[in-house]
Amino acid sequence: MRDISPSWVTVNLGAQSYGICVGSGVLSDSGSYANLPSAALAAIVTNPAVAALYSEKLQTRLASHYANVLLIELPEGEEHKNYGTMEKIFDRLLRANADRSTTLFALGGGVIGDITGFAAACFMRGVPYVQVPTTLLAQVDSSVGGKTAVNHPLGKNMIGAFYQPRRVIVDLDTLNSLPKRELVAGLAEIIKYGPVSDQGFLEWIERNLDALLSRDEATLAYAVTRACEIKASIVEEDEHEAGRRAILNFGHTFGHAIETGLGFGAWLHGEAVGCGMVMAAELSARLGMIDRAYALRLRTLIERAGLPVRGPRLGEDRYLELMGHDKKAEAGELRFVLLEDLGRAGVHGAAQEMVRDVLNECTG
Amino acid sequence: MRDISPSWVTVNLGAQSYGICVGSGVLSDSGSYANLPSAALAAIVTNPAVAALYSEKLQTRLASHYANVLLIELPEGEEHKNYGTMEKIFDRLLRANADRSTTLFALGGGVIGDITGFAAACFMRGVPYVQVPTTLLAQVDSSVGGKTAVNHPLGKNMIGAFYQPRRVIVDLDTLNSLPKRELVAGLAEIIKYGPVSDQGFLEWIERNLDALLSRDEATLAYAVTRACEIKASIVEEDEHEAGRRAILNFGHTFGHAIETGLGFGAWLHGEAVGCGMVMAAELSARLGMIDRAYALRLRTLIERAGLPVRGPRLGEDRYLELMGHDKKAEAGELRFVLLEDLGRAGVHGAAQEMVRDVLNECTG
Repeated sequence: MRDISPSWVTVNLGAQSYGICVGSGVLSDSGSYANLPSAALAAIVTNPAVAALYSEKLQTRLASHYANVLLIELPEGEEHKNYGTMEKIFDRLLRANADRSTTLFALGGGVIGDITGFAAACFMRGVPYVQVPTTLLAQVDSSVGGKTAVNHPLGKNMIGAFYQPRRVIVDLDTLNSLPKRELVAGLAEIIKYGPVSDQGFLEWIERNLDALLSRDEATLAYAVTRACEIKASIVEEDEHEAGRRAILNFGHTFGHAIETGLGFGAWLHGEAVGCGMVMAAELSARLGMIDRAYALRLRTLIERAGLPVRGPRLGEDRYLELMGHDKKAEAGELRFVLLEDLGRAGVHGAAQEMVRDVLNECTG
Repeated sequence: MRDISPSWVTVNLGAQSYGICVGSGVLSDSGSYANLPSAALAAIVTNPAVAALYSEKLQTRLASHYANVLLIELPEGEEHKNYGTMEKIFDRLLRANADRSTTLFALGGGVIGDITGFAAACFMRGVPYVQVPTTLLAQVDSSVGGKTAVNHPLGKNMIGAFYQPRRVIVDLDTLNSLPKRELVAGLAEIIKYGPVSDQGFLEWIERNLDALLSRDEATLAYAVTRACEIKASIVEEDEHEAGRRAILNFGHTFGHAIETGLGFGAWLHGEAVGCGMVMAAELSARLGMIDRAYALRLRTLIERAGLPVRGPRLGEDRYLELMGHDKKAEAGELRFVLLEDLGRAGVHGAAQEMVRDVLNECTG
């Protein structure tokens, strides 16, 4: 693999500003850890599969920054993304005499990042944490921007906090161990940034999709860095999702319904979002906001990436019920992130009948 | 009861600023609720004993601001201040189709306020909440400043968030139904503001203690308002307790050890803090920071208020162990809020031997 020097993206949020370090081998580079808050104790939160690959590397590096480094392994999978799993972190930290300076390192995918970030937000009312995402999806989306959460039996990500990490360390080498299905799921969130805010990036992805799928390092480095830049600029504008940040949920209302309807874990989050984007683009076209050709173009790219473009047969009523429990549903009205133009999105209401037409067209 | 018009204290925290409304009958006064964020759904979180006295009054008032008002009753007592109890709130909210605008009203004492505030902080990553404290302790301390938390089996208030309410509504009429023991426990937190930051207020309390104990309304109104003013000014300076705010924990390190050592609920929080202040003042005197006479003067006032001034016999080692798990213990060193002068406090380390001497002197 060629040597490419790391790139840094800054998320500018005043006193909560932090850097995202993207590059090959940055996990083992002391520069990635410079100027983190000092502490006696650090804890790596991960799962057994990721630990087997990377925990030793991270432990070795952290040993020169912290007197004690704790390894906390959580069971793998979205079905464990709940408060009970967070309790395991709290137990281990308290038994190790953690204090307010103890720093958590989330080593893994989106589930590990979301749980660890929320645990850091709550433990002693907030301790520092660092995201070390090892899946493409986490690298370009969930590890950046401070949205942390666990699931509730009645809804995904219902319990959580906006709580920013102190750093995001994105080692592109970790993508070499990623199963193809997860790489593809991550591409869904990369593709997303095009239609919602950067038409030029969408066109770049269309041209470079094959290189991304074959894990060409320089191509992945550009895609991840650009995705993080776009996300950072949106988060800077609207940290707590009072407005514009909601566009990052493009495809997520339909996607969450698919994930919840099938049971967490049946489809990967990125797969559900990929399919959800097809449905949301179809709804945008039906509302006359974009040309049908643009919806089709997006569908073609999502399909080329290897993502599902038809939703599972849950039944229209079940879909509507599941979307009614989504956090973006205010006062009973169904609202969606829809495409307004090439590379531009916004939140809009849609009549139930039209949503039913889309479900009828795009599922089963 | 004489009619005294409400006083307003503002907590200035930029975009998170809010008002504290203190007065008799303010629970039923529409002015207390002016300019709260609009929402379709509000939820009153309370316990059965408080609900029997005040929930109808609050429900009636909220009915003119919100289309739906949910009543959520939690079991009473510190032993229920845990995540399991928060889950009850989440379940009820989700079943009622709550959204991000749903506003929670914490009607009750410190336990209700802390749980409800933390639930508001976590639900959908943060919804608005209003504190309606009905105990003296909650009115002058826990309802102001946004410290929310639940207990963990290994420590009190270990899991929580800094999350500010949108308003605090302090109806002094609720103090008429307060058992004497709880009134006295609340006085401990009022007394605290004197030694840590306002010697003049301490002298005022010494002069007016009998009127406070006999629940004279004007005297209580002044004490509560002044306590809220002092707390607001400290919180404004240091919202996240990076420094000065820690002085509000005067008496709390010893106090938490007493509460945890006896099992939550054996002593009231204010009782443990009252006794803890005597111990912390003794430690301050032994370190030569204040005159012995000042420590004695504080002890006399705390005793006159009817608060315990001797800690339970837990054993020195057990006390030290319990204090080692306190959140203020960094890197194994024992640290305390100690008195530096009349009306001035700060955080200081203390040698274990001297702490043992204090425990030997002040407990058993």
